[in-house]
Amino acid sequence: MDPITQLTEIFSHFPGIGPRQAKRFVFYLLGQNDSANKKIADLIVELKKDINSCTRCMRFFSDGQKSSLCNICSDESRDKTKLLIIAKDVDLDNIERSRSYEGLYFVLGGLVPILDKNPEERIRQFELKREVERNTDLKEIIIALSATVEGDHTAEYIRESFKTITEPRGIKVSVLGRGLSTGTELEYSDIDTIKNALKHRE
Amino acid sequence: MDPITQLTEIFSHFPGIGPRQAKRFVFYLLGQNDSANKKIADLIVELKKDINSCTRCMRFFSDGQKSSLCNICSDESRDKTKLLIIAKDVDLDNIERSRSYEGLYFVLGGLVPILDKNPEERIRQFELKREVERNTDLKEIIIALSATVEGDHTAEYIRESFKTITEPRGIKVSVLGRGLSTGTELEYSDIDTIKNALKHRE
Amino acid sequence: MDPITQLTEIFSHFPGIGPRQAKRFVFYLLGQNDSANKKIADLIVELKKDINSCTRCMRFFSDGQKSSLCNICSDESRDKTKLLIIAKDVDLDNIERSRSYEGLYFVLGGLVPILDKNPEERIRQFELKREVERNTDLKEIIIALSATVEGDHTAEYIRESFKTITEPRGIKVSVLGRGLSTGTELEYSDIDTIKNALKHRE
Amino acid sequence: MDPITQLTEIFSHFPGIGPRQAKRFVFYLLGQNDSANKKIADLIVELKKDINSCTRCMRFFSDGQKSSLCNICSDESRDKTKLLIIAKDVDLDNIERSRSYEGLYFVLGGLVPILDKNPEERIRQFELKREVERNTDLKEIIIALSATVEGDHTAEYIRESFKTITEPRGIKVSVLGRGLSTGTELEYSDIDTIKNALKHRE
Repeated sequence: MDPITQLTEIFSHFPGIGPRQAKRFVFYLLGQNDSANKKIADLIVELKKDINSCTRCMRFFSDGQKSSLCNICSDESRDKTKLLIIAKDVDLDNIERSRSYEGLYFVLGGLVPILDKNPEERIRQFELKREVERNTDLKEIIIALSATVEGDHTAEYIRESFKTITEPRGIKVSVLGRGLSTGTELEYSDIDTIKNALKHRE
Repeated sequence: MDPITQLTEIFSHFPGIGPRQAKRFVFYLLGQNDSANKKIADLIVELKKDINSCTRCMRFFSDGQKSSLCNICSDESRDKTKLLIIAKDVDLDNIERSRSYEGLYFVLGGLVPILDKNPEERIRQFELKREVERNTDLKEIIIALSATVEGDHTAEYIRESFKTITEPRGIKVSVLGRGLSTGTELEYSDIDTIKNALKHRE
Repeated sequence: MDPITQLTEIFSHFPGIGPRQAKRFVFYLLGQNDSANKKIADLIVELKKDINSCTRCMRFFSDGQKSSLCNICSDESRDKTKLLIIAKDVDLDNIERSRSYEGLYFVLGGLVPILDKNPEERIRQFELKREVERNTDLKEIIIALSATVEGDHTAEYIRESFKTITEPRGIKVSVLGRGLSTGTELEYSDIDTIKNALKHRE
Repeated sequence: MDPITQLTEIFSHFPGIGPRQAKRFVFYLLGQNDSANKKIADLIVELKKDINSCTRCMRFFSDGQKSSLCNICSDESRDKTKLLIIAKDVDLDNIERSRSYEGLYFVLGGLVPILDKNPEERIRQFELKREVERNTDLKEIIIALSATVEGDHTAEYIRESFKTITEPRGIKVSVLGRGLSTGTELEYSDIDTIKNALKHRE
């Protein structure tokens, strides 16, 4: 296989990219000068060397040193009584930008599909258990997943799996509130959303 | 103007309809038999004769009689301590279908655009005042408008305008809760929605 | 059934309209004054009285008189050697606006779905036959249908059905040319379109 | 800047990619193993080394050797009397897949925007001139650009610029035919498309 075809094949596995756009990426690179492409290649090779996975929250981070804890997990001022569970690294940015959460995080690494036989392989269940057991200050676990069938199923799965730990220690387990998202028109809202919007009126 | 052009013109003022679809409506009617079209015309002419506007909630209804109150306003079992304000008649169906509200309604008849000079002409402010004054059992006004700039502005306008009535009587004024709508993915949520979803976690 | 429900039901059969938009139409009419609604009703009832179906091309028209021929069929300056077949009345406007056709028209009244058992009931085949036989000047039939599977199938069906008339009289039967539509990008064009665009290069 | 941010920045310059998807690419790479990422990096670095730009048609190709001509330009069986001009390398695949063209190609490398001051810098005008002068068998230049304002403008620019070469040698200059693209409905076609579809009826 020639390099154009090989690289097209590889790019077409990037998230959200089909073969046509993959090919456009290759022609884009062909149109760049050598040093620009060398830069990209170097960054890709170095990426994981410079990136650590936080041993507590499991998220990827880079601080130029070989730290085992990310800037949030090592920040003594964060509220250690709260642990917010997100599916993916990128979700964390969104929560931090809202400036409405001061606690710790845990990156689950995925969601559990309905009827999945081995849910514990889909998510970082072992690492989450370790973190919950380690943090003796913990008072609340906030499951912050998408408001989808899979998100709800995963939340329910975590709630059940950790019951034997959370109940004896009196740790509250909550999920994100439902209601009208910004921009939602009442006329086109589904019944569940309206029910929750009424319940959470303020 | 010939009747095709006249009717096209009229249909193109129907909500959400452009000139092309308006013309398709006319050709659709041309393809119908005379008695079907007579039926439509009769219903349109009779529509407002058979429809009353409820003297309390202002919504349109039809009960075959000349009642002044709609079936909800005349239903003694509804919770008279709550009044839910909606913008349009159609919104009411959505709330009722959610089976999570047992109080009374008021149809505002519109929203107040930002910077509007005469907000009291955009909405049924006078009729709302009359209804709030009439209902001495009232304990809560729930403003159930779309989660848009205009909806928020209208809610704020109502809250301010009725302060002199609600505060002395201790009537609570609430708005629908914000949070993740069904189907929303965390990654694509705006900051306000996340903030509210965190605040309303449960 | 109350008039709101009845009229919603009727509007939901208008082309492209679902139950929700149908209901918005009813509330729109409820918000209009009586004379406006009377006007619509009158126009709907009168519509077919003032509209004739041209006995040649079958299209609907209105000239305030009880003419049997539309303005195109009765226009002696039109080119009688050409007959252009369209599926629907609205298509005619589009062709006329292009100012690139001077011949006669015939409105087929529909398309023939693939595998349909009774194609002759879907389209005005009998009336088309009558018109082709009447017009002894005819030299070309142009089948101007959508570039869809159903459009192509209908074109093929007409071509076959009329072979016994067109071949002996030497009448040419053509279909609209294929190629790049305005706005089409080459990169996203299908193979058939490219093949035709190359064939019709100019 | 840390490597996540740097690589996100670079990916966000890929065609059609915004910052959010760029970040997802980075996290995708973080989730891959080292050897997979090494493979991508190597291919990107080697890409241009293994790829030649054909000295005639200017397209990128790779044949494992240091050939100066691509497989099409070096194929003696191709029809040398025709030269088809395309804007981008990817367009060539689409034409070849249509199996309706047997001539030579030229990749223009871009389009000329309306009112551009230096059109000759936007496209490979010099290289095209050299190729037209080299090919003494040439009888037709087919300008195969998108059916957009910019595509039409570029075609017109090329036609004018090469007039002094094409006219004396009697080289025909054509553009792709316009008409109904596959799937186009007559009702929604613009006037130019209908005009061309009628002209190219067959």
